[in-house]
Amino acid sequence: MEGDEEPQHLLMIEPLIDRDQRMSSESALLRRSSINSTSQVALVGAKVCPIESLDYEIIENDFFKQDWRNGEKVEIFKYIFMKWTLCFLVGVMGGLVGFFINLAVENVAGTKFVITSNLMLDRKFMHAFGSFAAINLGLTLFSAIITAFISPAAAGSGIPEVKAYLNGVDAPGIFSVRTLVVKILGNISVVSASLYVGKAGPMVHTVSCIAALLSQGGSKKYRLTWRWLRFFKNDRDRRDLITCGSAAGLAAAFRAPVGGVLFALEEMASWWRSALLWRTFFTTAVVAVILRGLIDVCNSGKCGLFGKGGLIMFDVTSTNTSYHVADVPIVLLLGFIGGLLGSLYNSLLDKTLRVYNYINNKGRAQKIILACTICVVTTFLLFGLPWVSKCKPCPADASEACPTIGRSGNYKNKNTDAEFQPTSLLIFFVTNYFLGILSYGIAAPTGLFVPIILTGASYGRFIGRLSGSRTSLNHGLFAVLGAASFLGGTMRMTVSLCVVLLEITNNLLLLPLVMLVLLVSKTVADMFNNNIYDIIMKLKGFPYLEAHAEPYMRQLTVSDVVKGPLQSFDGIEKVQNIVHVLKTTGHNGFPVIDGPPFSDYRAWFGLILREHILVLLRKKNFLSVPQPTGTDAFKQLSSDDFAKKGSGKADKIEDIEITEEEMEMFIDLHPFTNASPYTAGETMSLAKALLMFREAGLRHLLVVPKDSGLKGKPCSLCIALRVPLTVHVAAVTYAEAACRGNSN
Amino acid sequence: MEGDEEPQHLLMIEPLIDRDQRMSSESALLRRSSINSTSQVALVGAKVCPIESLDYEIIENDFFKQDWRNGEKVEIFKYIFMKWTLCFLVGVMGGLVGFFINLAVENVAGTKFVITSNLMLDRKFMHAFGSFAAINLGLTLFSAIITAFISPAAAGSGIPEVKAYLNGVDAPGIFSVRTLVVKILGNISVVSASLYVGKAGPMVHTVSCIAALLSQGGSKKYRLTWRWLRFFKNDRDRRDLITCGSAAGLAAAFRAPVGGVLFALEEMASWWRSALLWRTFFTTAVVAVILRGLIDVCNSGKCGLFGKGGLIMFDVTSTNTSYHVADVPIVLLLGFIGGLLGSLYNSLLDKTLRVYNYINNKGRAQKIILACTICVVTTFLLFGLPWVSKCKPCPADASEACPTIGRSGNYKNKNTDAEFQPTSLLIFFVTNYFLGILSYGIAAPTGLFVPIILTGASYGRFIGRLSGSRTSLNHGLFAVLGAASFLGGTMRMTVSLCVVLLEITNNLLLLPLVMLVLLVSKTVADMFNNNIYDIIMKLKGFPYLEAHAEPYMRQLTVSDVVKGPLQSFDGIEKVQNIVHVLKTTGHNGFPVIDGPPFSDYRAWFGLILREHILVLLRKKNFLSVPQPTGTDAFKQLSSDDFAKKGSGKADKIEDIEITEEEMEMFIDLHPFTNASPYTAGETMSLAKALLMFREAGLRHLLVVPKDSGLKGKPCSLCIALRVPLTVHVAAVTYAEAACRGNSN
Repeated sequence: MEGDEEPQHLLMIEPLIDRDQRMSSESALLRRSSINSTSQVALVGAKVCPIESLDYEIIENDFFKQDWRNGEKVEIFKYIFMKWTLCFLVGVMGGLVGFFINLAVENVAGTKFVITSNLMLDRKFMHAFGSFAAINLGLTLFSAIITAFISPAAAGSGIPEVKAYLNGVDAPGIFSVRTLVVKILGNISVVSASLYVGKAGPMVHTVSCIAALLSQGGSKKYRLTWRWLRFFKNDRDRRDLITCGSAAGLAAAFRAPVGGVLFALEEMASWWRSALLWRTFFTTAVVAVILRGLIDVCNSGKCGLFGKGGLIMFDVTSTNTSYHVADVPIVLLLGFIGGLLGSLYNSLLDKTLRVYNYINNKGRAQKIILACTICVVTTFLLFGLPWVSKCKPCPADASEACPTIGRSGNYKNKNTDAEFQPTSLLIFFVTNYFLGILSYGIAAPTGLFVPIILTGASYGRFIGRLSGSRTSLNHGLFAVLGAASFLGGTMRMTVSLCVVLLEITNNLLLLPLVMLVLLVSKTVADMFNNNIYDIIMKLKGFPYLEAHAEPYMRQLTVSDVVKGPLQSFDGIEKVQNIVHVLKTTGHNGFPVIDGPPFSDYRAWFGLILREHILVLLRKKNFLSVPQPTGTDAFKQLSSDDFAKKGSGKADKIEDIEITEEEMEMFIDLHPFTNASPYTAGETMSLAKALLMFREAGLRHLLVVPKDSGLKGKPCSLCIALRVPLTVHVAAVTYAEAACRGNSN
Repeated sequence: MEGDEEPQHLLMIEPLIDRDQRMSSESALLRRSSINSTSQVALVGAKVCPIESLDYEIIENDFFKQDWRNGEKVEIFKYIFMKWTLCFLVGVMGGLVGFFINLAVENVAGTKFVITSNLMLDRKFMHAFGSFAAINLGLTLFSAIITAFISPAAAGSGIPEVKAYLNGVDAPGIFSVRTLVVKILGNISVVSASLYVGKAGPMVHTVSCIAALLSQGGSKKYRLTWRWLRFFKNDRDRRDLITCGSAAGLAAAFRAPVGGVLFALEEMASWWRSALLWRTFFTTAVVAVILRGLIDVCNSGKCGLFGKGGLIMFDVTSTNTSYHVADVPIVLLLGFIGGLLGSLYNSLLDKTLRVYNYINNKGRAQKIILACTICVVTTFLLFGLPWVSKCKPCPADASEACPTIGRSGNYKNKNTDAEFQPTSLLIFFVTNYFLGILSYGIAAPTGLFVPIILTGASYGRFIGRLSGSRTSLNHGLFAVLGAASFLGGTMRMTVSLCVVLLEITNNLLLLPLVMLVLLVSKTVADMFNNNIYDIIMKLKGFPYLEAHAEPYMRQLTVSDVVKGPLQSFDGIEKVQNIVHVLKTTGHNGFPVIDGPPFSDYRAWFGLILREHILVLLRKKNFLSVPQPTGTDAFKQLSSDDFAKKGSGKADKIEDIEITEEEMEMFIDLHPFTNASPYTAGETMSLAKALLMFREAGLRHLLVVPKDSGLKGKPCSLCIALRVPLTVHVAAVTYAEAACRGNSN
């Protein structure tokens, strides 16, 4: 039960253009901001950008009912086939990209380590430090420059952005080709620069980005378009594919296909259907097969400095995982402290990011200087700290040569209980803890998973050393449990982290212990603050629709939070009126009202989307006299015309030229109006309206009055919009004058 | 995309009592049945029983807003604490029951095998067969008798019943104490009788049943009630706990905690919230810890004939799981044939169950005879078939003694590639295949998982033998993949089966292959029929609300499928009217209409539940004059009064005695009316209404007219009910006369 501590900006009410100049002041108390609904902004990569909601609702208008998807079997088969093909492509690309990033990092960083250690073997320590620092700085500089100049949206993990998208908001630039390229190259160089950042988060963003680009058929800007791919004409199908992408990203990062599926389910997706489980599973299975194939190729030695393990290697084999009931108390303690450390980590990161945002907002130079500063500090610590401790000689009976001697790779040794000094572990833990916090916010694609796992593992092993002979648990096991407790304390996932850790360690016997630790650390940490991605999402200004309502929302009704008269259209509306309304308001949905002489009585007909009206205006689908059109209206339109544009590429009313003569003409909106919008009675509680928005994935909710306009009371009609929702509440706009002419 | 082949009973329209005797005939074409909505019946254990919908919606009335849950922090904390305590209890009980069933089966069946094999060692073959047959028949008879006489609802797997409950229908007897006891004892004896039935399904039902009983605070009938447990007053919280129970059941059956969570998510639950993931995970973690503790105890030899492995043991160790890209074709073939065999299995089982239903409906004697016949056939085959093949001597270098020599247990041997003859495998596979189909439908608690796994494993190993040297895959691996393909072909789960298999084999390296096989077999099998539980659910007559709408539903609106005038109440209604309506209709929700003189105009106020009206009648919450009550109305009522009764224990209007004098009094319904019901415009398409029912977990949907009663048109009001929904469509009832008096 995550409470929210900041009720002061829970409600933001958006007034609409007041056609009748009669502003009602009844809900003035609730008003916090009176900016236009489309001015919802977010800080993405410390750059302010506008945010739009996505349309997840199926728009059921006459045109849709004529659409191919309700048509022939062949078309339906083609649609299903394309869905699976795109999932397959996402899986293949995810596997390839994940492998490429890994390979590039291991080769770049490996070469660097070989150069440095060769110089050290020659006892040229200053030379060694110089080349180490120069390479690190060069790589960081490259990463920061491309991030700052080409795509600021590529900074950071990317998981909060994808999560916000899957919750229903679209921040432009998140899924562009630029972001994709910068994310991949920037992450490779910043990880190779030995900064304390990971590649799992950026990989989730990268593969989601690939999924988004595939779903919109490539990028027009770079002329990389494939018409046969442009099959997903709506946000709903795109959301599904991007969900698969996020699962594939995590699966590629950790070679954890089941963990990837659960990660998408538990952390990323706000809406889930059982069909999605099957499709994400297919995607991650493809990733797993691709990775296995590529690793088979590399194991034959064709990939340069490619190690066998990847970055994370837990020293836990089935021989040393025995545990008993007597070990439970120390495991609980591990989880408890892990939860405390994790929530402290989140809170420190929050504060650090606020400072960094301030610096990053000052300009590109400041961004780059900040990144380089962190790089220099990290380099000094990495090079300097090993001098504090005494070295151990490389054991003579090691199965493979120690990696310090002129080669790159991981040093593997069974039974590591005595390998690390407690002081070394403590220094390593403290360094990791703070460097992780300081490194995340720089202008570069930085992940959180690996630093958190590393920090948690060193903490766990330290506790293992401290507990000494009081427990029979292996220290390698302690490291795994420490990583689990720290992950649970910061990210607050349970099932998915558990499965990811099991897939990393390849040891199912750990399951009950890992579960226990995760549950304890999450419970403890939840008492203090939110999970790390929610904190970052809030900092970036993404509106997020929670799945549960706050208690006070039960005491408010939708009509309590509405404000200002609303714009609506007649079923057959004059072009001039439409253009005026579209130009003077930022709304994306308008109720359509039917009335005499075309129908017997005035009543609402449905809801029409701005983007659909824009298509009609662009196609000049006009009538010289106001009379209903039949199916003729569809003749010059195809369903492709109504296909949703890619992220952030919506049409603008200003771009459409309409002559004076056309202004006097009419449009029959009926065939393009959604006659099945979701509705709510005006006394519906805010809590329930919020649940409806969340459960049905709504952007607009038509609020219908109960009083039915009897006894001379003017007919009133309301509309709730997802667009201007702030942190919690879908702002609701209300108009007494909507059924205008009724009371006259 | 599972199409439905039987559109003829898709629509069942329920007429309501016609107060005005004006039946509209506009939707007569759509009417299939005109029985009362509460007469929805289902065959449970071949016994016809009535079915009610569950109330998942939060009923937001004034009384609810005064309720403790919106009150003090202490109460909220208590509520959360109780939720977790109950999950903990479900986990503990699930672990204990699962262990007890396993222990009992291993001891009963083990003793039987020891007796039989001792007689055979003495070469007394007829004696051996006699005792083997007598014990089997006795156990089967016991199981069939208690099932037939005490709880017919305990027959079969129980998974379809739990799945139907979690989809929103409540068949009485499903979660009673009788069912629980019969399910446990009957399953132990029928499994010990060596019938081809499993214990996983019954275990899911058993633990779900425990969860249901805990959530309603025990059973009144058997005086096993604990007041402090009676904390869950609504179907919503009960649903959550039963979801945890189903996860715990599968976790206990296979010692697969993550698999259990995924099983609940993928197969069982129709509504899922992310909070549930965490809670089911906690429950299965408790199960895993309890099981581990108990097995630790048993390994020290205190549990009689308790083996180490349980029933399912795959011979796959990490040493022999190497596979390459070249092995993919044979794996694909395995999945393809598995899918074909699985869908054939489903279709044969469907036909067998139809025949069995016919026999079982004839009477208890017939039920018992059927069960005994299957037992005799199975016994003959089990005893006779080994004589067909030649025996192999027990290897001298086996690490433990062979189990045939006077002891019970599993025979374990590494590298079994040459252990089984192809003919033996083929005979074993065919016997399993058909005995599994024949055994499921008998009057006893029978599971499907184990027979399907056994059949699939023998099929896989057979393919392995046939492929000979063309593949390097180990035959044990073939057995696992065969089991996966057959499970995928019958049960059509993907992620959960995959994880269960990984947890059984304790080998994560198999993951990509198992995934591939499951995807192929599910895809192939989906072309022919539904998954096995959906088939059984349909046979049993449970209405099931699918997550997706059929294409034709887009062409219908809610008002197309409504029928007959509706009963509604005034805000302050005469007791006599209420009693009359409740007695003459079976509806569970009524719209409440406000009108003069208590309000300015006639408009709908909300929706009131039958069970809440019954509480008011029972508590004699009457007014002598028709005037609004304030908060006084709550004084004699506590939230416990409105607590939902346990499964199938609803109050009846006939049980409430009301005097002539009281009949003339009034009730103010306002404080108890849900003023935030979900509403739909009358032109909403049926497809969208279905999605609303499913997404928001509705029982009632208020259909509001668009025309607003202007220009003298009578105000109309509709209500859609979940109760009388049949296979696909929520039937919708409609009344022009609801706002009666408006047009006068």
